[in-house]
Amino acid sequence: MKALEEKILAQGKGIYPDIIQVGNFINHQVDPAFMNEIGEDIAKEFAKEAITKVVTIESSGIAPALMCAYKLGVPLIILKKKASRNLSPNVTRTEVTSFTKGDVYDLSIADGLIDENDHVLIVDDFLANGEAGTGAIRLIRKCHATIAGFAALVEKSFQPGRQKITDQGVKVYALARVSEITPDGTIKFL
Amino acid sequence: MKALEEKILAQGKGIYPDIIQVGNFINHQVDPAFMNEIGEDIAKEFAKEAITKVVTIESSGIAPALMCAYKLGVPLIILKKKASRNLSPNVTRTEVTSFTKGDVYDLSIADGLIDENDHVLIVDDFLANGEAGTGAIRLIRKCHATIAGFAALVEKSFQPGRQKITDQGVKVYALARVSEITPDGTIKFL
Repeated sequence: MKALEEKILAQGKGIYPDIIQVGNFINHQVDPAFMNEIGEDIAKEFAKEAITKVVTIESSGIAPALMCAYKLGVPLIILKKKASRNLSPNVTRTEVTSFTKGDVYDLSIADGLIDENDHVLIVDDFLANGEAGTGAIRLIRKCHATIAGFAALVEKSFQPGRQKITDQGVKVYALARVSEITPDGTIKFL
Repeated sequence: MKALEEKILAQGKGIYPDIIQVGNFINHQVDPAFMNEIGEDIAKEFAKEAITKVVTIESSGIAPALMCAYKLGVPLIILKKKASRNLSPNVTRTEVTSFTKGDVYDLSIADGLIDENDHVLIVDDFLANGEAGTGAIRLIRKCHATIAGFAALVEKSFQPGRQKITDQGVKVYALARVSEITPDGTIKFL
């Protein structure tokens, strides 16, 4: 998606060797109209897949995933990293290690939200090492649903995430594929 | 908002004395079309306020806040509970105690996202004890912005949140005001 690459160059910030800051339009300050375009783009890519639900991981992927689910006319499921008294205590869990945030967390989904009749599209903001995506795939498969694909806004192509997700038999779609961040902070695309 | 009250009665679950589970359409599984209606309702309520930004607290308020920001044609800012390498390290912070989740956390916003020229609307899923809202108000005022109001989808009117937010000179708008959860789990509205 050309518009996303341009926005990353204009408003994002690269920090050598592996950081891409897009906090001013994707995951801290969010541009809703642009998220709508992104959601539309992803929905179009998977239009033939008869998707029943969009799934994202709390919390940076919620905005684009919501717009995508809205376009597809299906519910959005937010996989939770934390227990809450406001949510059902009956959940399926899996453990995820995050390199980006430097921690280990439980990813969970309330029982009954996804089942063997579902064909699911995963949407997240970043694809880097692929841990969050792999955790989501594991959790969705534990619920016996099938997976149409994994869509990320920004892929760090110099990290192994795409390979890891693809190896699990899941199609990867990335809107912007970063090949390199140079020592002076220049962001380059594939 | 009548439609929200009806949906809470039909799909939500009350647990005596103070729990309202709406995880199957608001904060775990999200109904995007319904979120769109909710965003529209809130945007309409504050249409005359010349709002420059919508602010929410990570993560259950993101979906309705995004739809509201989209309707108002302004950016959404997600106040963060956790540091991340993908975000700017230069932030303003405040500490919040959450009764619902039973923890203490730092709420932060990257410097430069909100300033004295902003007139901000806060949107969140719940208004209960008002800690998250109070934290958001404190943080926004630290950034020297003004606040148009605090909008919540579900207010627990038997808890002190509304009073606390109002006492700080901020208008509260709640789409569904729950007066009581009876011992048999019936949810009653004001």
